[in-house]
Amino acid sequence: MTVTATLDVPSGAPARLATPAPGDPRLSRLSLNQKTVDSWSLSDAIAGCVAHGLPALGVWREPVARVGLTDAVRMVRDAGLRVSSVCRGGFFTSADPETRRERHDDNRRALDEAAELGAPCLVLVPGGLPGDDRDLPAARSRAAAGVEALVPHALDVGVRLAIEPMHPIFAADRGVVSTLRQALDIAEPLPAEAVGVVVDTFHVWWEPEVEEQIARAAGRIASYQVCEWITPLPPDALLSRGMMGDGHIDFPHLTSCVSAAGYRGDVEVEIFNADVWAADGDAVLDTLTRRYVELVEPHL
Amino acid sequence: MTVTATLDVPSGAPARLATPAPGDPRLSRLSLNQKTVDSWSLSDAIAGCVAHGLPALGVWREPVARVGLTDAVRMVRDAGLRVSSVCRGGFFTSADPETRRERHDDNRRALDEAAELGAPCLVLVPGGLPGDDRDLPAARSRAAAGVEALVPHALDVGVRLAIEPMHPIFAADRGVVSTLRQALDIAEPLPAEAVGVVVDTFHVWWEPEVEEQIARAAGRIASYQVCEWITPLPPDALLSRGMMGDGHIDFPHLTSCVSAAGYRGDVEVEIFNADVWAADGDAVLDTLTRRYVELVEPHL
Repeated sequence: MTVTATLDVPSGAPARLATPAPGDPRLSRLSLNQKTVDSWSLSDAIAGCVAHGLPALGVWREPVARVGLTDAVRMVRDAGLRVSSVCRGGFFTSADPETRRERHDDNRRALDEAAELGAPCLVLVPGGLPGDDRDLPAARSRAAAGVEALVPHALDVGVRLAIEPMHPIFAADRGVVSTLRQALDIAEPLPAEAVGVVVDTFHVWWEPEVEEQIARAAGRIASYQVCEWITPLPPDALLSRGMMGDGHIDFPHLTSCVSAAGYRGDVEVEIFNADVWAADGDAVLDTLTRRYVELVEPHL
Repeated sequence: MTVTATLDVPSGAPARLATPAPGDPRLSRLSLNQKTVDSWSLSDAIAGCVAHGLPALGVWREPVARVGLTDAVRMVRDAGLRVSSVCRGGFFTSADPETRRERHDDNRRALDEAAELGAPCLVLVPGGLPGDDRDLPAARSRAAAGVEALVPHALDVGVRLAIEPMHPIFAADRGVVSTLRQALDIAEPLPAEAVGVVVDTFHVWWEPEVEEQIARAAGRIASYQVCEWITPLPPDALLSRGMMGDGHIDFPHLTSCVSAAGYRGDVEVEIFNADVWAADGDAVLDTLTRRYVELVEPHL
């Protein structure tokens, strides 16, 4: 008898369990954020989800724009997939009012696109410190004001704004909202049907009292995203995320917290990593479904 | 007339003001953490401080051990310098009790060395998640217990334990205490003369409500350290700190907060950065004294 070992990517370690087949009920809430296989077009990502049994897809605006919104809506619907989120809006922090108005208008369009795609939420990346600006509290205030200004349109189109707190490694250049606590401070005065938060394990795993903050987020968790903190940290900070199980995050624990807070939506795997991007897309989906059913799904 | 422009290192930008001469009263609280000029021996660092008019030095245990503690004490005293801190103790988080006992004993020795050197504090790096351990709350509890166990000896020798909250980029592999708020939660039940905190701009600049936490730290600030958050982040996370003024941190604002909290001790410049380390040590000291009198000293 010949046994060919299945290997995980990008670690190269032997798979610890069999790959769930399409239709496996354990995959019923698993979503592929399409950035995880960066080389795939929207069409490839849809085909990948169908082939590997993932019922949902987190889409990015750029690949949607490449095929056109109308065709994108049709492709997703024809494949029978849910769109779990649209990435991304936000970038609220410019000190220039005119730039902020342009961003507001673009965020309204992003909400419209998300509504057309049937996505429950639009992920908001807050934006960093603009240029030479060193006034972090002021930039944070602009981010909060930017979210608030979008509430009426979010209610009109029925898409939730999902504030993504970002790991402090990105506070200067990408996201000035650094903790789940801060994101909830922004969200709480606003209607829950219009404004929620993203719980992304990579961003919040280190947060003191993350358990209490996830519990506090009950009714506000718009998206649960999973990916790993790995060491040594890869050289490009933007591509420093890992495959679940290859690093330091306690996925069973955080997933239990998210579940206890009442979250019943899709779970997106979103990994930005040069080694993952260099691997074969189908091998990435095989690995992530195995890791998901090992580390995440039993705790939902 | 020929004018030779003085250039800052490592930026290469023209200096924005004249280099303060030794004896300049603006330098009366400036300390060189010797890691900032990594190629210098203890003897070189002492000579550098004297030549550039810095009255204090933050020493590391390894270069002290290289010359021997007795000689190190004599060298510092003969040069008329203060030792502003000793780096470093800590690393409390091993899951193995025997390793933790060894660490405790070594930390006691570090306190003894700091006392001999006349340093007011021993900087404590908490330690990361050991090996495959993913239980961050438990590692944090071990860090808190490790600090508490050192209190009697710290009181005996008259050296303060200085808990260093570390940027969350280091939560997995170096420091599980991630915020000033957390460090103060550990310190507050313990006597203030035995346990304080380090306010290091690189580690805490992004912290939500950092202003409130610095105010809360009144009477607990054992050391104020300055260095910069720069983007793009250098490839090696451990060497990602920059020269003050080259990045995103609001030094006047944070320094004002530290001063308002009553801190009257030395201000250490501690920069780990490959470009700074590659520059001429005297040029580094010239630049850092200029940046210090521009951005920090007026706000003390």
